[in-house]
Amino acid sequence: MNATTNNAEKFDIYGTRRAKVAEALRARGIAAARFEDFEGTRDTSVRYLCGHPGDAFLIVGADGSSALVAWDRNMADKMASVDKIFSYTDFGRRSTDAMRAVLSDLGVKRGEKVEMPAATPYPRFVDHVAALEEWDLVCEAGGIDDTVLGMRAVKDSGELAIYERACALTDRLIDQLEAGVRAGRLATELDVALFIEREARAAGAEGTGFDTLAAGPRRSFGIHAFPNYGSGPFATQGLSILDFGIVVDGYTTDVTMSFARGPLAPEQRTMIDLVKRAHDIGVAACGPGVAARDVAAAVDAFFAEAGYAMPHALGHGVGLEAHESPGINLRQENGAILAPGNIVTIEPGLYDPRFGGVRWEDDVLITATGARQITASRIVEL
Amino acid sequence: MNATTNNAEKFDIYGTRRAKVAEALRARGIAAARFEDFEGTRDTSVRYLCGHPGDAFLIVGADGSSALVAWDRNMADKMASVDKIFSYTDFGRRSTDAMRAVLSDLGVKRGEKVEMPAATPYPRFVDHVAALEEWDLVCEAGGIDDTVLGMRAVKDSGELAIYERACALTDRLIDQLEAGVRAGRLATELDVALFIEREARAAGAEGTGFDTLAAGPRRSFGIHAFPNYGSGPFATQGLSILDFGIVVDGYTTDVTMSFARGPLAPEQRTMIDLVKRAHDIGVAACGPGVAARDVAAAVDAFFAEAGYAMPHALGHGVGLEAHESPGINLRQENGAILAPGNIVTIEPGLYDPRFGGVRWEDDVLITATGARQITASRIVEL
Repeated sequence: MNATTNNAEKFDIYGTRRAKVAEALRARGIAAARFEDFEGTRDTSVRYLCGHPGDAFLIVGADGSSALVAWDRNMADKMASVDKIFSYTDFGRRSTDAMRAVLSDLGVKRGEKVEMPAATPYPRFVDHVAALEEWDLVCEAGGIDDTVLGMRAVKDSGELAIYERACALTDRLIDQLEAGVRAGRLATELDVALFIEREARAAGAEGTGFDTLAAGPRRSFGIHAFPNYGSGPFATQGLSILDFGIVVDGYTTDVTMSFARGPLAPEQRTMIDLVKRAHDIGVAACGPGVAARDVAAAVDAFFAEAGYAMPHALGHGVGLEAHESPGINLRQENGAILAPGNIVTIEPGLYDPRFGGVRWEDDVLITATGARQITASRIVEL
Repeated sequence: MNATTNNAEKFDIYGTRRAKVAEALRARGIAAARFEDFEGTRDTSVRYLCGHPGDAFLIVGADGSSALVAWDRNMADKMASVDKIFSYTDFGRRSTDAMRAVLSDLGVKRGEKVEMPAATPYPRFVDHVAALEEWDLVCEAGGIDDTVLGMRAVKDSGELAIYERACALTDRLIDQLEAGVRAGRLATELDVALFIEREARAAGAEGTGFDTLAAGPRRSFGIHAFPNYGSGPFATQGLSILDFGIVVDGYTTDVTMSFARGPLAPEQRTMIDLVKRAHDIGVAACGPGVAARDVAAAVDAFFAEAGYAMPHALGHGVGLEAHESPGINLRQENGAILAPGNIVTIEPGLYDPRFGGVRWEDDVLITATGARQITASRIVEL
């Protein structure tokens, strides 16, 4: 075992966030919690709580102490802001061995409660319980992961400043994409998708927040086109969809443009008009204290009255991941109330195997007094 | 509930695969198993068993019957080869409701065993057990998921034909990348990464099998560079790494090129020479009946003798995912024996925060009599 102590920026934003986690743990009588970001168990809360970009697990103690067990020690030494760093390789990458060492090092006493990620697979949790019998392992929905997701759903001033830059870049790309398509420079799915990759990274973005979906008229009927983009034509006659997000300092935007090139069938004209009105209804319905379910219901009712139905949720929070809390959907269990600092997508769409699809997605910031659309996506008619 | 019956290609490869699954279920006294591919629970076994690309769960009965519950019904109607298709939306996207309906429809009797994916989170499994008390739900390591991973590890003739095309395309890109870098046309991380995206898709590939890692000399010390690529210089003086894979009909290759531009420090020269020799030792060690752990141990011993250590596994299977069975690593629990039809990576690498990193990765097919390197990646010295 060969741990290093990292005192850099010990009182930075990560320490503040971990202090909140520690407080929540104390309130529930839990001595320490594990957050994990490996292949198959991705959780950007690790980055949120210590700055490390992934392939590691983090233990946060109820006393605010912290330790990171990282696959790439060199990367962790450069990027993680945490009390101690361990190398996973030193434990033969055996999760239970690494965890025992870290919990002992942090002084977590025998018999105390230790929380595992709620995403821990059932057989794996059972194994950990058996191997770490010194402690009382717990794994539950509504636990510390939910606390952190709740924290992440309310952006602080630093995060809002990042979104200001991310949205400005996103909007510039939207304008350039419209201009490029109109001028004929961007004529294939590959053209629009790679234009985004290049321009975003050249402007300093980390990349795209998810696989860009660029679907020309023959493929736009799919909610998520498969493959996500190809070499086929884009923005030719009919309906095309372009769904993308730009990552700045870890945080992603999420917008969808649609391109409609005439002549259009009456059905396509109707779909476009309905989606346009649904977008505005959705944005207008947002505000602090509003039930997220009611926002989704407003758009659902509008579509239903016109005889249409949307096959996906109206929207979702964005942040370190493309899909975060709160969800803007009709699910029975969705009890989310919009709060100042939430950033959510509003993305009504309609799809038809015969006519293709149209979706319009913007990001919306919930403020103390209302809601502000912070991106300027659009349906481009050609 | 509004299920359609899909008789297309009922006796195709998917049906054959599901028959093997059914046989394995019967041997274990299980009436049906669930395979799931949603955000957070990705499992390409769904595609392997029915052709549907994702966002769905599949139930396979011990009698060989099958049903797919899909988020995008239109997509499923076009792509899934399965007995019945249900729309997840019809169940309000409530997993337990959808599962009850499908199990009843398939005639799974009360009290019979139903297997959940081994990746099911602990709290979610507990919820399903409570909600679906008509059946005896099980969730275990080494169950049906492992059976399917074992099937996937041994490529059949159709899969080998796909790999022939995928490797030919990968090799063409490798040649073009070397030429482009030598000629100065590809001079940044963005240049090489987007060249791959464009050329691959233009040639009919679905895309790349994972986020391309392109790291110039300042960033190549990271095993997985973060961000995966940026706008910085590539293949300038020092060591650069380019790790990518091409997806053809669902199956990905996985290769890593390194670029070394002089003048090099003695340490960099040593790292390159060691990785070159380690690559050949690793490939030569592969063969049918060989323990995967022994292949990894051969390279580990070679590095250790030279006073070096590799911070990651030597390799892994490839297929519908970039990381599949068998693993070529030193983990205690790794009992894999290489078998004809396995396709594995051999990817020795050395990394140093001061000197950068070098990795050389090729794909290797295990045959009845030995092993054949099926890609032609390289360390390019400039």
